[in-house]
Formats: sequence, structure tokens, C-alpha cells
Amino acid sequence: MATLGLIEHKDASPEVRAVYDDIMATRQTDRVNNFWKAIAHDPATLRRTWESVKQIMGAGALDPLIKEMIYVAVSVTNQCAYCIASHTAAARKAGMTDSMLAELLAVVGMANQTNRLASGYQVEIDEQFKT
Amino acid sequence: MATLGLIEHKDASPEVRAVYDDIMATRQTDRVNNFWKAIAHDPATLRRTWESVKQIMGAGALDPLIKEMIYVAVSVTNQCAYCIASHTAAARKAGMTDSMLAELLAVVGMANQTNRLASGYQVEIDEQFKT
Amino acid sequence: MATLGLIEHKDASPEVRAVYDDIMATRQTDRVNNFWKAIAHDPATLRRTWESVKQIMGAGALDPLIKEMIYVAVSVTNQCAYCIASHTAAARKAGMTDSMLAELLAVVGMANQTNRLASGYQVEIDEQFKT
Amino acid sequence: MATLGLIEHKDASPEVRAVYDDIMATRQTDRVNNFWKAIAHDPATLRRTWESVKQIMGAGALDPLIKEMIYVAVSVTNQCAYCIASHTAAARKAGMTDSMLAELLAVVGMANQTNRLASGYQVEIDEQFKT
Amino acid sequence: MATLGLIEHKDASPEVRAVYDDIMATRQTDRVNNFWKAIAHDPATLRRTWESVKQIMGAGALDPLIKEMIYVAVSVTNQCAYCIASHTAAARKAGMTDSMLAELLAVVGMANQTNRLASGYQVEIDEQFKT
Amino acid sequence: MATLGLIEHKDASPEVRAVYDDIMATRQTDRVNNFWKAIAHDPATLRRTWESVKQIMGAGALDPLIKEMIYVAVSVTNQCAYCIASHTAAARKAGMTDSMLAELLAVVGMANQTNRLASGYQVEIDEQFKT
Repeated sequence: MATLGLIEHKDASPEVRAVYDDIMATRQTDRVNNFWKAIAHDPATLRRTWESVKQIMGAGALDPLIKEMIYVAVSVTNQCAYCIASHTAAARKAGMTDSMLAELLAVVGMANQTNRLASGYQVEIDEQFKT
Repeated sequence: MATLGLIEHKDASPEVRAVYDDIMATRQTDRVNNFWKAIAHDPATLRRTWESVKQIMGAGALDPLIKEMIYVAVSVTNQCAYCIASHTAAARKAGMTDSMLAELLAVVGMANQTNRLASGYQVEIDEQFKT
Repeated sequence: MATLGLIEHKDASPEVRAVYDDIMATRQTDRVNNFWKAIAHDPATLRRTWESVKQIMGAGALDPLIKEMIYVAVSVTNQCAYCIASHTAAARKAGMTDSMLAELLAVVGMANQTNRLASGYQVEIDEQFKT
Repeated sequence: MATLGLIEHKDASPEVRAVYDDIMATRQTDRVNNFWKAIAHDPATLRRTWESVKQIMGAGALDPLIKEMIYVAVSVTNQCAYCIASHTAAARKAGMTDSMLAELLAVVGMANQTNRLASGYQVEIDEQFKT
Repeated sequence: MATLGLIEHKDASPEVRAVYDDIMATRQTDRVNNFWKAIAHDPATLRRTWESVKQIMGAGALDPLIKEMIYVAVSVTNQCAYCIASHTAAARKAGMTDSMLAELLAVVGMANQTNRLASGYQVEIDEQFKT
Repeated sequence: MATLGLIEHKDASPEVRAVYDDIMATRQTDRVNNFWKAIAHDPATLRRTWESVKQIMGAGALDPLIKEMIYVAVSVTNQCAYCIASHTAAARKAGMTDSMLAELLAVVGMANQTNRLASGYQVEIDEQFKT
């Protein structure tokens, strides 16, 4: 199921279990995704990654739903099958409708296209866009 | 300035000029970015790309500002310098604040990180995420 | 199993068989991976690729284990499932422990993150880093 | 110099300055790279990123020099000019010689090549590599 | 079979069915690939994408077979399994032989390698290549 | 000009000079691109890369011009500025017209778009495309 296997809650060390519990409490769910069970083989990475995700994905200047949709956009661009599946599900849970998903993917597709037209035509940055 | 040079409005064919005029009218601006002036060497691509962008980036289930931010997310992931510069400017014009940009980039960075943790640990997709 | 199928040792031409034999002798194993059996449909590519890999991956200024780990880092970044699976196995055979794999993936994840923060913030190269 | 400009030490808030000071102390240097000065516009991201980098890049199962070389491998694969320049410099400072850099780049190039041969030939993962 | 499922011809709206019929007539086939059945959930994207593909992939300054091979080259570089499978099939139907596929993949592999040697060695663009 | 500098013909070792001479003779030119002068710091990589490029890019089942255009397609997809500039020049020298370049870039852009629509919609491979 993963290079080093998946660590289930019942088999986890107290340190890992504490992260699992915080994930479930924060996300108001009774299960932990395979992603976390896989990286739990490295408790430092598990904790650091979860703390970062929790800090980044919460409400702020951007709504959590928008953040989940950006996560999908990046995962689709990178062709990460696991991430597309899990973050599409997360975005839906956060309120993304079919129409919103369709528009999101249309934008992602278009951006990937014009990214290559810009590089292929070797377009120089306009003066007013320079930082 | 670009592989085939940039075509200015005054030097453009009526077909190209019509697209330039529609870009400026739609975006309520009096200038056309280098990107369009570069691909204008291929009028079919200029027209098709502009019509697609206009259709995709307008208001719909998602707000134009959100769409511009998704465009930035893809461009940053792909390391397209031209696109990052021009779409960051477009997103700002559409209302993106410094805080929103900072949160957008934090999400993009995090997604690029976990995309690789998921693939590196060879995590299998959870049953409930399978389509 | 592959676009053009896999060519087994017993069905291979003498030219292909010679490469297979050199792979097995060099790697001290009695099997050839699917990768080589797939590209064997193009004997010139088989030979050129194997000779290059043999030259590059042997001991030199860097240890073969380090080289295998770098191979994993690239494959994870590119989301190449076949390459992640085969080179993770190769790195383990060369001595990579679970802890080393975990640290490798943590670095790969972090680098993918900061690569995007650097491009997203459009950071200019520091004078002293310019070549 | 960057989308939001660079924040110099003398203009930084105490929170940002504390991170700068820790970077300089940890790296035994008297300067802070543009990367940190750019993301300092988002103090939470500055602190989180630095704490993560410090935790990940220190000595562990892998030597810091090896970690810096892996960072270069990822940055080269992603075509991140800023990251290639800064991490090549960091790896040199950590002891990477010209020969080591040359071998590193040879491996990165080769891995990027075989990643595409594997996907292009649609090679299925060997049974013994499945997790 | 896809995030939003596949829309079959018999279940399709007249608008979607018209696109399906045009795809089958243009390609002289009696079936529509899963790709189109998946994006049919967004009729605007279905129509826009098909019209663009039809315009771009037809005969022009480049032969349709060459265009299909370029499509494969991009898909292999991006590690898009669906696209590699479908466009390799399309290129074969358009006349690509095993030898042509093998040479195509050899070029794609080599280009991915030298792309990284160029970036890794931080090679500056030759004066005569500057636009 | 490059991480390790550029090695000019007059300063090159006999081994490096022999490769330079073969490059100029094969390409019927009196100059060597910066790429080769940069990797010449690693004579083994210089020789191996040149021998591979010479073997792959010559006439075979595919015309050299087509191969150069595929090289551009990959380089554009990867956002490698050096490679886009040098291989666009090489393709032009081999006979690529402005119209051919425009169609090439249109295909590259479209492929990058549909690659993401396919992954974003999580489309499963059609039975008849499975190898």
C-alpha cells in the first residue's frame, strides 16, 4: 500500500497517535488518510507536515475552500494521482460543486497551455510587470 | 523581444487588430501585453487563445479573481517567469492583496511538497477517494 | 506490459542478449528489469542507455548509493511511478535504510516547496550567486 | 528584486529579525539570502519555512552535504534558476567539489532521460518492486 | 471511471451529442474516447476543447502524423499516462511505425536529459540565439 | 557564463578538442555552442552526451528536422530557456519555417492543456488503449 507500509492508529506510537488524533479532531472525521499513515514512519516529518498543513490551510485572507481548489490546481499540473483524488474529495467536502470543479479544471488547462505559448514564443516580460 | 518579434497595433492586419481591440475593450485597458503581440504572428492561434481565455476567465461558478489566482498557482508550479509576472499583476488588478498573495504562495509551496511525499512514499489511493 | 511488449532473454537477438548479460553480470543478479526488456525493441537505445547508465552510476567522486538516492529524488519530483519503484529498490539494495529514505524524501519535498516560493515571490538571484 | 520587495535586517520587525539572526547563526554567516528577505513579507511563512529547512537539512541519517546535493538535483529538474544558483553555492560551501557537481548533474540528466523512456514505453512495474 | 463519471452517447444532451457526432465523423470512427465522455460534464469545455483540437491537429504546415508525435512527446515529458496511451494509439493509426516510435522516444529522453544539463551547468544563452 | 565557466577551443585538452572538432564537422559550422563549452569541464559527460546526440538526431525513421522540432516541444514543456533558444535556432537551420514553428507551438500548448484535463477529470484509460 506504500513503500514502508501504513501505520494504523492502534499500532502507532503515542507521538504518532497524537498527530492522528489532532488530524481527526481538526477535520471532524473519524479516519486518517493513507498519506498520513505512510509518512508516519518518519514521525518528525509527520508532525512537521501536519503542523504546516494545519497552519496554511485554515481560514485567513483566503477561504479554506479556495485553498483546497488551489491544492487541486497544483496537483493536476504535477500529475500526482494520489493528490488529485484526495484533494478533489477534500474540496468537495469543503463545498466545491461540479460546476466549480469544471471551471477550476478549465482554468488549469488553459494556464498550462499559455505557459507553453509564452515560453515557446520566448516572450519577454513587459516593462510594467517587472518587479 | 520574442522569437518572431512583437506585432504592434499600428502594424497589425485587420484580423489581428480586431482581437487586440476586443482584448482592450474586455479588459478596460489601452494596452495589449507582449504575450498577445508575440502569438499574433499566428492569427489563428491568437484568435483561438483569446476566445478561450475570454470564455474561461469570465465570471461563472468561480469569481474572476479566484481564477486569476489559480492561474498564478499553475504558473508558479511550472516555473514560467513571464506568466508569473503577468498573472500576478492581473490578479492584483482584480483585487488580490499582499496577504492573499502570500497565502496563495504558501498553499502552492505546500502542495508541491506533499505531491512529492505522496509519490515518494508510493501511497495508494484510499478506497473512498476512488472514482 | 509495455507498448511494444517485453523481450525475454530467450527470445532476444544476440545483440540484445549481450546487453542483458552485461546488466546481470554488472549488477550481480540473475534477472533483468522490465525497463530494459521494453526498450530492447530498439537495440541501439538499449545499448546506448545501458552503457551510459553503467558509466554514470559506478563509483567515482560520488558513492553509488548517493547516486541511486539522487535518481530517486529526480524520479519523485517527476512523478514517474515506475522509476520511483525501481530506483527505491535499487537504492535499498545499495544500502539505503528506512531512515535514509525518510530523510531523502523530506529533502525532496522541501526543495519542491521552496522552488515554488522562490519563483512565486519572483526572487532575483543574489549577486554573489551569479556565475 | 522580488514581487513584494526585499526586507532588510534594519527594516525588519523583531519577529522577522529573530529569524534572520537564527539563519545567520546557524549558517555561520553574516548575510541573509534574498529568498528569506522576500518571503519575510509573510512572517508566518518565513518562520515555518526556516524551521522546516533547519530541521530537515541538519545532520541525521544523511550528511548535510548529501542533502544539499539532493536539493540541487530537485532544483535542476524543476528548472528553478534561483534555487540552482543558491543551492549549488550552498553545496560547494558544504564541500562539493567540481567533480562531485559534474557527477551529480550527470545522474540528474540520466534520471530525467530514463524517467521518460519508462513512461513513453509504458513499462509496467516489475512484480518484485511492488509495495 | 472518472471524477464525474462518463457520459455515453445515448445519455447525452443534444449539444454534447453533436460534438460526439463531429468527433466520430472527423476521425472516421464509431467510438468516442473516455476523455471526451469525461469532460462532457462541462459542455462548454467539451465544445471549446474539441474545436481547438480539430483546428490545431488538422493538416497545415505540419503533417497530422507529425502533430500526433509531438503530442506524444509532450505527454511523455509530463508523465500523463492517459495521454501517452491514447496519443500513442492515435499516432499509430496515423501511420507511426515501431521504428518511428522508438526514435521519437529516444529524442524525448535525450531532450529531457540535456534540458537538465543546460540548467544545471547554468549555461548562458549564446549571443546569436538571443531574439 | 556558466557554473564552471566555458572552455574555449584554444584552451581545451586534446580529448575535449576532438569532440569540439567532431561537433563542428558534423554540423558544418565553425563554432561550438556554450552548452558544450560548459559541460566540457566533465570530458566523460561531454563525449557521452555528444555521441548520444549524434546517434539519436541523425536521419533514420524520422527526419532530422522532425527530431529538432520534437526537441523544441520537450524544451518548451520543461520551460528550459537555453534549450528553447538553441533548439529553435537548430530547427530553423534544418528548415523549420515560421508557419511550422507556429503550428508546433500550438500543438505543444494544446497537449499541455489536455494533459491536465485528462488528469484533473481522473479519466481511466480506455480498454483498447491498454498495452
